[in-house]
Amino acid sequence: MITILSVELIKQSLQQMLSPERYRHSLGAAEAAAQLAKRYDASVEKAQMAGLVHDCGKSPSRNILLNRVLEFGIVMDEIEEVESHLLHGPVSAELARREFGITDEEMLSAIRYHTTGRVWMSLLEKIVYLADYVEPNRSFPGVDELREAACRDLDGAVLRAMDLTLMHVIERGLMIHPRTVAARNWLLSMDKGSK
Amino acid sequence: MITILSVELIKQSLQQMLSPERYRHSLGAAEAAAQLAKRYDASVEKAQMAGLVHDCGKSPSRNILLNRVLEFGIVMDEIEEVESHLLHGPVSAELARREFGITDEEMLSAIRYHTTGRVWMSLLEKIVYLADYVEPNRSFPGVDELREAACRDLDGAVLRAMDLTLMHVIERGLMIHPRTVAARNWLLSMDKGSK
Repeated sequence: MITILSVELIKQSLQQMLSPERYRHSLGAAEAAAQLAKRYDASVEKAQMAGLVHDCGKSPSRNILLNRVLEFGIVMDEIEEVESHLLHGPVSAELARREFGITDEEMLSAIRYHTTGRVWMSLLEKIVYLADYVEPNRSFPGVDELREAACRDLDGAVLRAMDLTLMHVIERGLMIHPRTVAARNWLLSMDKGSK
Repeated sequence: MITILSVELIKQSLQQMLSPERYRHSLGAAEAAAQLAKRYDASVEKAQMAGLVHDCGKSPSRNILLNRVLEFGIVMDEIEEVESHLLHGPVSAELARREFGITDEEMLSAIRYHTTGRVWMSLLEKIVYLADYVEPNRSFPGVDELREAACRDLDGAVLRAMDLTLMHVIERGLMIHPRTVAARNWLLSMDKGSK
């Protein structure tokens, strides 16, 4: 049970930890996650909290991120060694556990995998993944279609968001995390299996 | 040593095995592979032959392809089980061995991996991969830039071709083969390592 008080305290901490823009994005993600949780019968409380803290370990400084990876004993894979920004998922999960006392593994997993996604994503993982993408402050070509899709077809919207992520990563010449490709292939296989 | 005679006999067989369009593409790939081999000091003879037969097992019929997979004892991975068109690479390599007596493993490997690419691609594998993409009959947005890149920077052109492949696969809602992603990440890591 997450009390209103603890949410307020966490918001105060986040406001000090994050840039104003990142803090606004976190509030937006919490709101979007809560709406999606209502729509898809997930725990609104868990979704809202996971959405709120999903970026708590995000930092514009590569050094701060890598110091936390070291401090938390996080094992980097070979893609994360190069694309270190991907580490803000696992770092945020561990920070949420240590700083905010979040121990629910479903929530921690949704925070951990919110950037790459993964095969066998849980309902909460999909909600947080998508909330990060469609929260009200987001603005990119196709965001309105994605918001509509998110209300209509959760898996289809996650798939579409992964497509957009992959195209963005390709255009910028960054490495692709194989976890995203595996997750996308998994969603496609379920989609084909259901037809 | 591949004799002119055997090349002519193989061409006659290919003309019977493939559609006129696919046969023209094969001649174009042989020509493009020969040019790239000259440019990058690879064996012109091997490149030309591998380019010529790279699609010899390609068939518009899924059944024919799957029957050959069974006959040749080819082990499918889980992506190939769904995206069966990807199997024309390994099927063509095995057919080239059985029908045309090609035993050179470097050539067979270039045929086998010409659609997905792979980590640690050899020079010949890169040449055949790219020749398939830029041969004179190919026409798609960006092909001229890719042809120029192929003459200037082999690895950069293979990377660009992989980007185009991935975007095409994403747009069509097909599964992505992890081998292509691993190959692209590998090329990017070499590129970053050299800077």
